[in-house]
Amino acid sequence: MSINPKIPAIKPQNITVENLSNQIIEGNKVALAQGITRIESKAPHHIQFANDLITKILPYAGKAVRIGITGVPGVGKSTFIESFGTYCTDVLQKKVAVLAIDPSSSVSKGSILGDKTRMETLVKNDLAFVRPSPSGTTLGGVAKNTREAILLCEAAGFEVIIIETVGVGQSETLVKGMVDFFLLLNITGAGDELQGIKRGIMEMADGIIINKADGDNAKKAIFAQKELERALHYFPINPSGWIPKVLTYSSLNYEKATDVWQMITEFVETTQANQYFFKNRNQQNQVWFTETLKEGVLQRFYADETIQKAVEIALELIKNNQISPFTAAKNILDGWVKPT
Amino acid sequence: MSINPKIPAIKPQNITVENLSNQIIEGNKVALAQGITRIESKAPHHIQFANDLITKILPYAGKAVRIGITGVPGVGKSTFIESFGTYCTDVLQKKVAVLAIDPSSSVSKGSILGDKTRMETLVKNDLAFVRPSPSGTTLGGVAKNTREAILLCEAAGFEVIIIETVGVGQSETLVKGMVDFFLLLNITGAGDELQGIKRGIMEMADGIIINKADGDNAKKAIFAQKELERALHYFPINPSGWIPKVLTYSSLNYEKATDVWQMITEFVETTQANQYFFKNRNQQNQVWFTETLKEGVLQRFYADETIQKAVEIALELIKNNQISPFTAAKNILDGWVKPT
Repeated sequence: MSINPKIPAIKPQNITVENLSNQIIEGNKVALAQGITRIESKAPHHIQFANDLITKILPYAGKAVRIGITGVPGVGKSTFIESFGTYCTDVLQKKVAVLAIDPSSSVSKGSILGDKTRMETLVKNDLAFVRPSPSGTTLGGVAKNTREAILLCEAAGFEVIIIETVGVGQSETLVKGMVDFFLLLNITGAGDELQGIKRGIMEMADGIIINKADGDNAKKAIFAQKELERALHYFPINPSGWIPKVLTYSSLNYEKATDVWQMITEFVETTQANQYFFKNRNQQNQVWFTETLKEGVLQRFYADETIQKAVEIALELIKNNQISPFTAAKNILDGWVKPT
Repeated sequence: MSINPKIPAIKPQNITVENLSNQIIEGNKVALAQGITRIESKAPHHIQFANDLITKILPYAGKAVRIGITGVPGVGKSTFIESFGTYCTDVLQKKVAVLAIDPSSSVSKGSILGDKTRMETLVKNDLAFVRPSPSGTTLGGVAKNTREAILLCEAAGFEVIIIETVGVGQSETLVKGMVDFFLLLNITGAGDELQGIKRGIMEMADGIIINKADGDNAKKAIFAQKELERALHYFPINPSGWIPKVLTYSSLNYEKATDVWQMITEFVETTQANQYFFKNRNQQNQVWFTETLKEGVLQRFYADETIQKAVEIALELIKNNQISPFTAAKNILDGWVKPT
């Protein structure tokens, strides 16, 4: 564990790959935030900067445990992360970074869930770093930004990285593809109409938590836990060789947080022993390579001024209904000399 | 209305762009299915074929009303489409095509909802055409396939195109971006925990239907209808100038289907009168152009044998942990001569 040094931020005009990467590696949270902002930027000179920054910090990344957390709205994801994150910093003395993914807010115009992720306690915590949704315009962009943000956080010495995903569907698959441990949050009495969706998500989960297991709800939560444990027996065996655990949780005390941390530690030990942990990260690396390559091809294509001009003209013609969008795209592609 | 001629299918080895497009334009459903299969194919020679096919049929497309339908699992989307689709064919004598989108099945390995969309009545109906999920490997691929399938269906004379989307999130935005009218299916008593998600989807909806409004449920449905109508008052005004309607539905009789059809017709008349209908399609064309261009750039990049070889070597090095995926991608990109 190392406390973040309170080095003042580098002024934007003085930022270089050299000094920013140094400050990130020293654990400066302001520099970390600046680095993530550069990664999310779409400005052409920032793209080169971001690439160089990643190359620079890569040797320092990879040492954290990466945890994905999902659950439908209302299960208390933010509160859980606040509670569990604070346990990690206060009891375990570990540095915790929280990154949020909300593809709905980046791809559609408005966020489906609104900007409700606050985590006020963690935000003020010296050992914690909280970063809201990246502002990618495509799902691929969101994935790229988040993946690179994980690396920056790791280079800055964060030992527990929590990726929070919102909603049900696409984003789960995305997050599952960049974490070691995938955690599903649940509450008792969630509508039956969600069972269809849950099954798919449940198949991805390494752990399931019945949240809000306190007060009148405690008994029901234990009942739901037993039910889920039974249900999991009918699921296909996890390629990790790990049998998913079901725990109950209450943010009222740290006792339950100990159980969660123990589950995660056990998972890491088991899967490192049987090599799955490393195989999984390697497979994620292959996907990461493929996506970085795609993103890079498109970036370079659109960086070409001839292409930019042609696209502009095509869009104008389409606006005036003078050409079919399909033909317009075909024309640009046919005029484009393939690399040899 | 024109009944599909029962022309026998062209044997795969005899298919040309010429004869396939002719048969599609004549309304042959087997040829239509063959065309869609070619569009979904990733084989390099099929890609060229698909492009030529689209160019050929484009002048015949665009005349249908395109309806997107969404709703969480359990609201009875399939049953509604069966019932409403059969009303369109039997009472209105209109040709109806149903295309399904399930991004979860294409992007993740398994379908979250399973292959449960059957629509047995419509499948056997001469005036109907039902096509399950396209098998794209990316969300962009799914979008491309569906958009082009719509055009093929229109060229084949289908007048009502229904795009069914499954799940909550990404796919809604996708479908909203390719239809004229977006319909949300609902039932009474769906859990409150879904309200957060529903709000975002509700904002996209041009119409909301309370399904299963029969028997004991009829009264509750009317109550829910009134509630939703009140709730819609607090929503931002739709750019179409159209005020979304809330209807109740029961698949037990055609009476309610008349209401739905009337709502859609009214929407089309209103938005064609105020030009929104055309503006919306034009905007969709711009997106379509952008996506076709992206897809094309990537296709051409990966069609290059030097690139293929380099990617293969890079993946091998990554598998052996001999290079970082980021550096591997950067190397290929730096070696790639930009088009000039």
